[in-house]
Amino acid sequence: MGYRAAAGDIRFILDHLTPLPQLYGSAAFPDLSPDLAGSILTEAARISDEVLAPCNRAGDLYPARLENGKVVTSPGFRAAYTALAEGGWVALAAPEAYGGMGLPQALGLAVNDMMTGANMALHLKLMLTQGQIEALSHHGSAEQQAFYLPKLISGDWSGTMNLTEPQAGSDLADMRTRAIPDADGSYAVTGQKIFISWGDSDLVENVSHLVLARLPDAPAGTKGISLFVVPKLLPDGARNSLHVASLEHKMGLHGSPTCVMVFEGAKGWMVGEPHAGLAAMFTMMNNARLSVGVEGIGVAEAALQKAAQFATERVQGRPIIEFAGIRRLLGEARAELFAARALALKAGVALDMAGADPAGDWALRAAFLTPVVKVYGTEVGARASDAGIQIHGGMGFIEETGAAQFWRDVRVTAIYEGTNGIQALDLVGRKMRDGGRMACQLLQEVQEQAARAHRQYPDLAAPVREAAEAVRAAVEWLVSQDQTTRAEAAEDMVQALALVLGAGAHLEAVLADPDRRALAAVHIGRVLPRSAGAVAAMRAGSGLRALSLPDLGL
Amino acid sequence: MGYRAAAGDIRFILDHLTPLPQLYGSAAFPDLSPDLAGSILTEAARISDEVLAPCNRAGDLYPARLENGKVVTSPGFRAAYTALAEGGWVALAAPEAYGGMGLPQALGLAVNDMMTGANMALHLKLMLTQGQIEALSHHGSAEQQAFYLPKLISGDWSGTMNLTEPQAGSDLADMRTRAIPDADGSYAVTGQKIFISWGDSDLVENVSHLVLARLPDAPAGTKGISLFVVPKLLPDGARNSLHVASLEHKMGLHGSPTCVMVFEGAKGWMVGEPHAGLAAMFTMMNNARLSVGVEGIGVAEAALQKAAQFATERVQGRPIIEFAGIRRLLGEARAELFAARALALKAGVALDMAGADPAGDWALRAAFLTPVVKVYGTEVGARASDAGIQIHGGMGFIEETGAAQFWRDVRVTAIYEGTNGIQALDLVGRKMRDGGRMACQLLQEVQEQAARAHRQYPDLAAPVREAAEAVRAAVEWLVSQDQTTRAEAAEDMVQALALVLGAGAHLEAVLADPDRRALAAVHIGRVLPRSAGAVAAMRAGSGLRALSLPDLGL
Repeated sequence: MGYRAAAGDIRFILDHLTPLPQLYGSAAFPDLSPDLAGSILTEAARISDEVLAPCNRAGDLYPARLENGKVVTSPGFRAAYTALAEGGWVALAAPEAYGGMGLPQALGLAVNDMMTGANMALHLKLMLTQGQIEALSHHGSAEQQAFYLPKLISGDWSGTMNLTEPQAGSDLADMRTRAIPDADGSYAVTGQKIFISWGDSDLVENVSHLVLARLPDAPAGTKGISLFVVPKLLPDGARNSLHVASLEHKMGLHGSPTCVMVFEGAKGWMVGEPHAGLAAMFTMMNNARLSVGVEGIGVAEAALQKAAQFATERVQGRPIIEFAGIRRLLGEARAELFAARALALKAGVALDMAGADPAGDWALRAAFLTPVVKVYGTEVGARASDAGIQIHGGMGFIEETGAAQFWRDVRVTAIYEGTNGIQALDLVGRKMRDGGRMACQLLQEVQEQAARAHRQYPDLAAPVREAAEAVRAAVEWLVSQDQTTRAEAAEDMVQALALVLGAGAHLEAVLADPDRRALAAVHIGRVLPRSAGAVAAMRAGSGLRALSLPDLGL
Repeated sequence: MGYRAAAGDIRFILDHLTPLPQLYGSAAFPDLSPDLAGSILTEAARISDEVLAPCNRAGDLYPARLENGKVVTSPGFRAAYTALAEGGWVALAAPEAYGGMGLPQALGLAVNDMMTGANMALHLKLMLTQGQIEALSHHGSAEQQAFYLPKLISGDWSGTMNLTEPQAGSDLADMRTRAIPDADGSYAVTGQKIFISWGDSDLVENVSHLVLARLPDAPAGTKGISLFVVPKLLPDGARNSLHVASLEHKMGLHGSPTCVMVFEGAKGWMVGEPHAGLAAMFTMMNNARLSVGVEGIGVAEAALQKAAQFATERVQGRPIIEFAGIRRLLGEARAELFAARALALKAGVALDMAGADPAGDWALRAAFLTPVVKVYGTEVGARASDAGIQIHGGMGFIEETGAAQFWRDVRVTAIYEGTNGIQALDLVGRKMRDGGRMACQLLQEVQEQAARAHRQYPDLAAPVREAAEAVRAAVEWLVSQDQTTRAEAAEDMVQALALVLGAGAHLEAVLADPDRRALAAVHIGRVLPRSAGAVAAMRAGSGLRALSLPDLGL
């Protein structure tokens, strides 16, 4: 039995754990109804299972390759991509004015979850286009929007993000790519960019590159970076002066061509204001980070389905799914997956609520949850796919089962769109500039959830209340610390928050559906206790400064 | 700068954290001296760095392959293997009577640590031969010993272990390979075995296979399995009726040929008694399990060295090794590596002490520590190599750095020689049949260590004492539980024990060398707190039984 997208769990979370139902028929989404949402999810699940999943292995076995300067994609990818584009699946949440469906971003994330589990490599192409649509919607000129958005939304063209250079990764201050103004208002962009996912392919007519570069008069550092749109084919149909120099040989995600892009005086147009490129790119990256967290979640789903299936079929005396060790691996990973998915969809709905209810704190809530979802979703993807290998035993180490592919593919999600370490710094820095107010509010909500659950489920509610209180105290401690201490505690803070917020989501789920009690008990009994370790580690953080080079193995 | 085997840390642990010095000049090891031990470690480090490490990448890039029924190994492997064999490195601890050096097993493990970090794929060949030497030393007839041991110890021949069949992995009860007695006292062995590491190669004249099979009158299940030695070339030089049917396409360890072996009435000789094969194989497997734990440790060392080097060279504003997040990744992994290495060498020295002081409890101690070292060593290998990738950022996902190879290679160590789940069951089952006496004794020793450290290092000693007490209470609770509850708690018990025993080792290290304080503080402050989570999870274990099929994703 093949992959089945998790439409059921997703629908349950959206209906019972988020305020999405408030948006049905609202001013922001007048056409949105339970039926429409349901049919979107059902149809996305169908296309995931029947169109995307069947070519996922081919992406691994027959990587995208560069032939005579052109990127040739994996077998089956063209037909699958065409089906996605023709079905209108490239950008569900894109503006209706340019051919999008104007649906909630939460539904877009839900669809990404399902499609990523089916085929992360191919779906990444859509994610990048979605990011570009968002960037141009916010920062492009009316002319740019009219020219690019319809083509991107239809999937005839696709989008890329060109940030990284060999010397400039997590820190973009050293970026060297230059943009020289031309008399006609365009710019000549010159430089080399690396790690450009889907920098080119044989699936689309044209590729629109968003490129960060410096103007001649740019100040040094990150405040001198501007954003340009640089298409592969110019409006008159001529080839622009840019090309794919090579593809990276990666440990996973072979179906996604990761390009070294060379721009040699390529014609581009500025998006937004001079020197404000990084801010514009970050509007887009914030949501892309949510989508990357969702990639981890989708791959976790696929890996665990495959492993559970194997565990029912593999008999060692009795089916191995009856063994405690196998149930532990599957059960803990499933409990974490539910929690991560709930946090991701809560963040997605918060983005939509921010539009519908601008007076609320929804935008802050979404911004706060974003690094949590990025880190925790991608870690759940890694842990679940690792459990998937372990459940397969010796067969897990053999490539033919496909268990290893999930593990190799998902590994990049902890790295790209800002490493998980960068996300954690974002959380304890920018996202706690409010003195930890939003963190404490979310923890307070978990405590209220625990209070509600207390009468029926005291054994579940009590540990959640205690853990939430411990993390709340840790937040209060953290915001009073110096910058280095905060940085040292950053990743443990993300862990602790994700675990407690996830436990809160499990309580909500049990209150809505008592059949979800067993999985919640596994989360609260076996997963949540890790939060105490994370809190302890935070308070011990300053020891890292004392490590000598020999301590670090040098 | 390339790999440098960790001779310094190993020597420190052996001298200060184990009773190895008691064995210098002892009756069991009359020739052993600090100088001899030192020169063995120095020379092993040299050959690891200069001979083994340089061909490690080639093993990944140019996998062993099957050509016309013959296994062709990776470039450079022949010269490296020849250097190892000629240097007498195949089996340091093997009996002197057959050409071995009769050195302590602890030194053998130390050398395995260094050589595995340099080249796990090639070194695995030695490990298997070491296991076979041990099995034949204990269970072979005098004739078998005289015939096989000199050739195995010299490295002219190599050894394999043939256990797994497609339907019989962790549970060998369903094994189908048959052995029919011949008139000349030999047996005709027929069957198919899978996952046979180094089942054949172009590096040696002959391969001696240890094969588990059933006699015609064998009882069903694991009590009807006998052990046979089945050489590739018969004593008269003729080819035996066995061949490599195919090599597996694995996610890592490409330099090690993993063979499907087919025996078609191959001539073999019984080793030990009829139907007692599994017990004989397990004598050998117990030590092989220690060696697999050490594989994790060696790979962790190599991966962290590469990552630390990268972190000093990679500048993002400043060298990234100055960033808190990078120091956290390196520091925690280094602290765990030290702990795992200390536990492995303590187990190794306990094996040697068991011979020198049979009245002591050394054998029980070694047996108890073995599954802990197997699980924790391999997990440290996985975590350290994962940290190595993360520290490399985007470059970590690209194969050319080599960071990914460590991660892919070491993944098998959690699976082979008994999955980590099986090891955990061994710990809470067989190894706690004493009612938890050995566990409590080791924890008591940690508490005594904490008491000794208390005056100078109260901040380090107190958390260790508390954690040891909590785990001791958990052991007492566990041994009173039913079998299923023990099984559900098994892996958390391994974690908790490994963390506390590792913290005890760090305390010992600090008392011997105050410069080791910072790393100990990272372990005790940031790593050890996980043990509380493991203890909590243990007590919550019974929830796993309540999971329904839908909870498990089915």
